[in-house]
Amino acid sequence: MGVEERREQLIAVALDLFSHRSPEDVSIDEVAEAAGISRPLVYHYFPGKQQLYEAALRRAAEELTARFVEPHEGPLGARLLRVMERFFDFVAEHGPGFSALMRGGPAIGSTRTGAMIDGVRQAAYEQILAHLGIPDPAPRLELVVRSWVSLAETTALLWLDGRRVPRAELERQLVHDFAALAAVSAAYDGQMAVVVRRILAEEPADGMFADLVTRLSRFT
Amino acid sequence: MGVEERREQLIAVALDLFSHRSPEDVSIDEVAEAAGISRPLVYHYFPGKQQLYEAALRRAAEELTARFVEPHEGPLGARLLRVMERFFDFVAEHGPGFSALMRGGPAIGSTRTGAMIDGVRQAAYEQILAHLGIPDPAPRLELVVRSWVSLAETTALLWLDGRRVPRAELERQLVHDFAALAAVSAAYDGQMAVVVRRILAEEPADGMFADLVTRLSRFT
Repeated sequence: MGVEERREQLIAVALDLFSHRSPEDVSIDEVAEAAGISRPLVYHYFPGKQQLYEAALRRAAEELTARFVEPHEGPLGARLLRVMERFFDFVAEHGPGFSALMRGGPAIGSTRTGAMIDGVRQAAYEQILAHLGIPDPAPRLELVVRSWVSLAETTALLWLDGRRVPRAELERQLVHDFAALAAVSAAYDGQMAVVVRRILAEEPADGMFADLVTRLSRFT
Repeated sequence: MGVEERREQLIAVALDLFSHRSPEDVSIDEVAEAAGISRPLVYHYFPGKQQLYEAALRRAAEELTARFVEPHEGPLGARLLRVMERFFDFVAEHGPGFSALMRGGPAIGSTRTGAMIDGVRQAAYEQILAHLGIPDPAPRLELVVRSWVSLAETTALLWLDGRRVPRAELERQLVHDFAALAAVSAAYDGQMAVVVRRILAEEPADGMFADLVTRLSRFT
């Protein structure tokens, strides 16, 4: 194998191991064994576990960021739902590693891992603004979008802890949560009201947001 | 001063310094100067900055947890609003330290600081359950309450970054966000619907939740 090819193989092997068990529990020996090479050869490519972990994390961050990309076509609610489905796919695939990373801790936390997580959050934020067609949002819209991104993150983490609520329900709920948080903000602020009215006007009668209204009216 | 008294003084001085600047930028020399004692004497009480930081953080965590305590009297929305006001008081008082802590980073993160943060989250979660009168919640209610606690945390952090939205607006919005997240969950689940109906039934006509409904109906 060439140098680049070998590096890629080690990153893929490491990402798989780090995804299925807490990174603290994965040793370089296991990485070497899974890659079918010697321990010194792993160290030839990566000076230590932290570097290999960060390379695997960078790969995971790129992969997750790619899943946020959604064509600007059709109702916003349906777009957001498709992104949520791909987000939960990712979370399900990388469960233990995702939990360990997001729950932090000194064994895996570093300035660089923190920056990578923030980079993924920023990408999610910018994708949503792009779908809203508002690249330069007022502070209240920024707050709604960023706090919803954080809500999606927390919801996925809580789901991983026992998976006691069906993920499909949570994916739909998160789309509705976005509408709900935006509506609460719109109840206070004229600019936000304009944004929310525009989103709702573009939604079809059988879309995600209409579904929420129907469900809520049945419930009250 | 006695040993305990001196320790208490150092913790108070350190908490004040760590609250107003990022903990990474605070030196033991400054702590000594602010306390009016020598640097070696500080080290006599605390072996290093990390230990002093953790003692100050423990004090801050106790203080914040105490602010969550609210009499079980009157409408739930009003209780939650009073807690939110005290939470934002705390966040305003400890701004830079709160941001630095919650944004993590290896300079201040440790297993112990992480456990203290989780302890505060858990206290907030249990307080809300106590007010709801549901000590042993179903998974969906647990998810709503825990994700709302995280939303309050994120909202406060985003507010600190420029304070571009009046905090009083955010305090009210967070109460409404709680109602909104619970309502979305109730739209999917019969048990949650029972919980939400009971909360709403106990709210007065001029209460926080009625206010949200009025605001929303004005807006749509």
